[in-house]
Amino acid sequence: MKTNIHELISQMTLEEKAGLCSGLDFWNTKGIERLGIPSLMVTDGPHGLRKQKESADHLGLHNSVPATCFPSAAGMASSWDRELIGRVGKALGKECQAENVAVLLGPGTNIKRSPLNGRNFEYFSEDPYLSSEMGGNHIKGVQSEGVGTSLKHFAANNQEHRRMSVDAVIDERTLREIYLASFEGAVKQSQPWSVMCSYNRLNGEYASESEFLLTKILREEWGYEGFVVSDWGAVNERVKALQAGLELEMPSTGGIGDAKIVAAVQSGELAEETLNLAVERLLTFVFKAVENRKDNASFNADEHHRLAREVARESMVLLRNEEGILPLSKQGTIAVIGEFARNPRYQGGGSSHVNPTKLDDAFEEMKALAGSAELLYAQGYELNHDGINEALLQEARDTAAKGDVAVLFLGLPDNYESEGYDRSHLSLPESHKALIEAVSEVQSNIVVVLSNGSPIEMPWIHKTKGILEGYLGGQAFGGAVADLLFGEVSPSGKLAETFPMKLSDNPSFLNFPGEGDTVEYKEGLFVGYRYYDKKELEPLFPFGFGLSYTAFQYSNLRISKSSIKDTENVQVTATVKNTGTRAGKEIVQLYVSDVKSSVIRPLKELKGFQKIELQPREEQEVSFELDKRSFAYYNVNIGDWHVESGVFEIAIGSSSRDIRLTASSEVESTAPLALSYHRNSTVGDLLDNPRTADKVKKFSSIFGMEGAMDDNPEMFMAMMKYMPLRALVGFGQGKYTEEDLAKDLQEFNALAVE
Amino acid sequence: MKTNIHELISQMTLEEKAGLCSGLDFWNTKGIERLGIPSLMVTDGPHGLRKQKESADHLGLHNSVPATCFPSAAGMASSWDRELIGRVGKALGKECQAENVAVLLGPGTNIKRSPLNGRNFEYFSEDPYLSSEMGGNHIKGVQSEGVGTSLKHFAANNQEHRRMSVDAVIDERTLREIYLASFEGAVKQSQPWSVMCSYNRLNGEYASESEFLLTKILREEWGYEGFVVSDWGAVNERVKALQAGLELEMPSTGGIGDAKIVAAVQSGELAEETLNLAVERLLTFVFKAVENRKDNASFNADEHHRLAREVARESMVLLRNEEGILPLSKQGTIAVIGEFARNPRYQGGGSSHVNPTKLDDAFEEMKALAGSAELLYAQGYELNHDGINEALLQEARDTAAKGDVAVLFLGLPDNYESEGYDRSHLSLPESHKALIEAVSEVQSNIVVVLSNGSPIEMPWIHKTKGILEGYLGGQAFGGAVADLLFGEVSPSGKLAETFPMKLSDNPSFLNFPGEGDTVEYKEGLFVGYRYYDKKELEPLFPFGFGLSYTAFQYSNLRISKSSIKDTENVQVTATVKNTGTRAGKEIVQLYVSDVKSSVIRPLKELKGFQKIELQPREEQEVSFELDKRSFAYYNVNIGDWHVESGVFEIAIGSSSRDIRLTASSEVESTAPLALSYHRNSTVGDLLDNPRTADKVKKFSSIFGMEGAMDDNPEMFMAMMKYMPLRALVGFGQGKYTEEDLAKDLQEFNALAVE
Repeated sequence: MKTNIHELISQMTLEEKAGLCSGLDFWNTKGIERLGIPSLMVTDGPHGLRKQKESADHLGLHNSVPATCFPSAAGMASSWDRELIGRVGKALGKECQAENVAVLLGPGTNIKRSPLNGRNFEYFSEDPYLSSEMGGNHIKGVQSEGVGTSLKHFAANNQEHRRMSVDAVIDERTLREIYLASFEGAVKQSQPWSVMCSYNRLNGEYASESEFLLTKILREEWGYEGFVVSDWGAVNERVKALQAGLELEMPSTGGIGDAKIVAAVQSGELAEETLNLAVERLLTFVFKAVENRKDNASFNADEHHRLAREVARESMVLLRNEEGILPLSKQGTIAVIGEFARNPRYQGGGSSHVNPTKLDDAFEEMKALAGSAELLYAQGYELNHDGINEALLQEARDTAAKGDVAVLFLGLPDNYESEGYDRSHLSLPESHKALIEAVSEVQSNIVVVLSNGSPIEMPWIHKTKGILEGYLGGQAFGGAVADLLFGEVSPSGKLAETFPMKLSDNPSFLNFPGEGDTVEYKEGLFVGYRYYDKKELEPLFPFGFGLSYTAFQYSNLRISKSSIKDTENVQVTATVKNTGTRAGKEIVQLYVSDVKSSVIRPLKELKGFQKIELQPREEQEVSFELDKRSFAYYNVNIGDWHVESGVFEIAIGSSSRDIRLTASSEVESTAPLALSYHRNSTVGDLLDNPRTADKVKKFSSIFGMEGAMDDNPEMFMAMMKYMPLRALVGFGQGKYTEEDLAKDLQEFNALAVE
Repeated sequence: MKTNIHELISQMTLEEKAGLCSGLDFWNTKGIERLGIPSLMVTDGPHGLRKQKESADHLGLHNSVPATCFPSAAGMASSWDRELIGRVGKALGKECQAENVAVLLGPGTNIKRSPLNGRNFEYFSEDPYLSSEMGGNHIKGVQSEGVGTSLKHFAANNQEHRRMSVDAVIDERTLREIYLASFEGAVKQSQPWSVMCSYNRLNGEYASESEFLLTKILREEWGYEGFVVSDWGAVNERVKALQAGLELEMPSTGGIGDAKIVAAVQSGELAEETLNLAVERLLTFVFKAVENRKDNASFNADEHHRLAREVARESMVLLRNEEGILPLSKQGTIAVIGEFARNPRYQGGGSSHVNPTKLDDAFEEMKALAGSAELLYAQGYELNHDGINEALLQEARDTAAKGDVAVLFLGLPDNYESEGYDRSHLSLPESHKALIEAVSEVQSNIVVVLSNGSPIEMPWIHKTKGILEGYLGGQAFGGAVADLLFGEVSPSGKLAETFPMKLSDNPSFLNFPGEGDTVEYKEGLFVGYRYYDKKELEPLFPFGFGLSYTAFQYSNLRISKSSIKDTENVQVTATVKNTGTRAGKEIVQLYVSDVKSSVIRPLKELKGFQKIELQPREEQEVSFELDKRSFAYYNVNIGDWHVESGVFEIAIGSSSRDIRLTASSEVESTAPLALSYHRNSTVGDLLDNPRTADKVKKFSSIFGMEGAMDDNPEMFMAMMKYMPLRALVGFGQGKYTEEDLAKDLQEFNALAVE
């Protein structure tokens, strides 16, 4: 194939080559008929295919062909289920084949910096490890069907506010450990066919023009082999973008970008080899897609709907279950209140909006599983505006009063969350809050089912006994809710993000969405639970949290070696037992802490997780493998990951705030950092290093400071500790010279190693 | 005089000139006998003179001559009393004259970034306005006696950890609005004879070598006329420091620094004019000191002790007074517990440590005011170690049980707070906490009197009914405490800093004391109450808080003009009435908020305060004058203070969290910022400006996007709002060209103004 492509390129005119580097229109790449290069279609949608029926509008907002709408990423990530998300990917791949789509534009692995980000529902998590695992398995699933993915939006696209012009200012360590790590794991494990660059700037440079991102990191460091496509309209200067490593500009610019490339080659500004390389990568993709094309492919919509229901069930998180109000009894009277029970909010707005093949009605689905229970319904609020409707509230009160329990379907309406803009608060609509208040006047057994793509505040939580977080559950939301409410299946999702008590608790709050066209990520590494943990701030619900109808006991934590080198892997195992009376699934989480570090680090970081299913009384051994990266931080001085020798704590928990087992492991660096002493190194620096500590003794005698030491030894030693060596020259008044210092530094540096 | 100095300089050899730029020894400047230039003494101590008896030790820690020890700055600032701090300064000046000291090395106006800073007790506040007002009046007082001050430590010396090598990384706006503003106000209002540069680096450069700090800002922008002295040992490279604007290196380096200056002049590296200018500034100081010298000066130690008691009384803050437990009854039995009642902790450790002329014993002072009440005493804990002494606890229980009330003297021992090192936690010693616990077992009426230089955590607060924060109250701590406990005077101090619930609440927590030799001020402007306010974080006690034995009513807020230009001043007045039954003082605080700002700003900032004394039923009008600076933020782009036109809220309160009156004022900028549109300006930017909004309409019609607008108008408009103009070229597919854009930009920019 390679030869063929080189041959093809040699036959192409400069204009044809430049032309291949941008779209034919909104959704198709350009073909070249005379050379047998076909035009291919790409479409939106990480959780469902959005293939437009027509291309009359340029922003691509028109109706699309029916496709299965799976839960959005926020929900899917709450399943923490690699295998399941792989199956979703596979189903999406089949639908792409059926619709002759070569690339599905997803998944998105941007980190959830702020819960306000309008596009959070399309992203997985606040944690890069969880996010990259979900993204990687999604990609593997889609691509197993011979359809490409586009891992997006690379990188640091964490808000919609001024998304096409904003400059995200992020220190490199934070970038590496949080924002890039989320992409890195996915790229390395799954080799997406394409990566989509983001709209925003990063540290002053457009992502679309960043050689640092698109070439140095993505290709050279991570070994990425696919091509880079622009987010739709993300190209600022076409030639600069091509030079940085962006092959495909989308959508078509009507030839404007192509002409710039041609002119740049002709003027010598752009090397033709650069263009050739881009074309080679694009043709590699084109022929891979052609090879993998399955003619007459189709998919089973019912089967995919069932899968959507399964995924939704696994994605929902039981947040509250006081007095065991859930599962619901299949007897008595159940008041179902809130129009979302009939007209669900099941997906977010924007480019990911899918036209579903089928759409569950939660009320009907509940009826089907309710046994002998009677179900009543009241609308509760209006779907299309936030205002309080007193008549609906009164109807809701009347209905709720007749039930043994009231199940309220609440959440965020469509216009609260969408691509294109951010939220400004975390509140439910006034009408939904009023509904809780009204129902609570007549009914003390309240269960809330939530539809929302991102955390909300719950000042009303104490009026409820149960809360099921449904996220944006896709087209089978209704069926999945019914399954969980009636206990057909035990809830097993856990939060992939922290729910804060209030918006101002969020770590990015002081600097979101920034000032003018700059947003500074001043919270640094402390994103999500990394912040709440370190600041000892109680969240509403912590990262990794989710209740079950059964109970799990953890025991027998073992580490394969108590002491390792950072080049070795270590196996961690623990036993988990279902001690309850129902079958259920548990998501077992592994966190690593550096007990003592010379750099600022989070208290703990997620480095492993497993989801297991257990029958009552069944127990299973869960195992994890940790590698160098599990212990490392990114050292910007050496430009690499570094493990600081010392003790690490390994914690196994049921959530980030419910650690059940801990053990320690000693890790030794095989590449200790070279220390370098200079005139402003302190006496304490020398004392800290066993190799140089002895050498320091002589200083105290040089200066006749014994008197001072007697007078206030503690303070004296504290002052000496922080004293730079050069100050000894001054305080020595001639007894210790610059020449002595220079000689000593030579000696100290000869002894210096971490 | 000037002529004389120039004449003198012309007579000096290069060596003599260089020699004048460093000390003779630890505490004296060099004289030149043949030219009649005397040697002068400088000594430590913002709140008391620390003139050493001998200079045998080089770090200057030996015993000093007796001098009045006033409350440390943390306490004095809590008085919020400009006049009073001026009187303290005057008294210090008299003591300097009596001891033939030319310069008192203080005050310190560094901002309290973290409560852990070991030297916080020497600093005034977390707020730059309050800090600079306290510093400025202190300076004016000292200098009114013909004695110089040294405003320190310039700048950003906010921790002791690695203080001589650490690099404080601070964005310029934060530096200007917070850390420098605290010095700026003091310099401008009081012209200190000297400014002391700090040990640390600032944004990569040693403060001692920063032309930005020592020349550009201090002299050129602020109009400073004195000289700059190094903190003791703060000079890194002597020649670079001289060039930056540091005239006097202290202490003596035994000629090493002088020789470097001589060599640099000889090699041509240093212009002799630079040296001459430094010598001129130093001689100006020397002859000013000589002129102001009062021979045979003396001071009245008893009078100064009385002043120390007055100041201490005004500085202490009543934090809690449940059930009116204070003032104490002068009948019955009072159990006084805790060795601090007999051996007070009344000052901090380090260079500010004073040898007091007299030292009050709180227990004896209480006895003198106790009327017919019987006072019992128990030691409670050991002074010199933190461990719990069960015998002392039992004695305390027994004593407390006999009292109608127990007054516990608690706080931080000497080694908890000192120059030279920072604290690592905010806790009281274990033995003090155990004492509260023990006493609470037998006594429900507990009053705690605290001695500490910086905030502590109070998990035990609910076991107490009263808490009097005594800070480090100076030598008359005991008398002042007695005055307040028995109600001779009503407490009137208010906190000049926030007391957090816990250490991790502090805004600098994630980045204190930094990593290696770098500390990043990532909390930015959000220092102290600016952070707690914005983050909606409940402090233990807020900034500006303090209780009284009487009550005050606020009314009648008036603003001289409802609408002003930013070049005009505005007068704000309010009426405050004592509605209680005792005489008392109230500290009336004025905060300003920019209601809507395009830049990130704190919710409110202190811009005025007045302390007034009122008899029962007396009322008084309090007035404030606000100027441009009261409304401005520092705009780094124009390098100047800027007021954004719009509405500002003016709030008058009894504390930062107890706002009593608010009003609005419209302020119009006389220097609106020029706007500049470019290819990445957004459609929304044009829509925001009434001058360009109309021009935008044409874009929607160019691109045939009407269909999309119908489909999802809200999202469509949101997307357009953030769309950069250059993206219109791409999406326009030839209908809007780069040439059209260039032409439009010209037109937009012609219309552009804020």
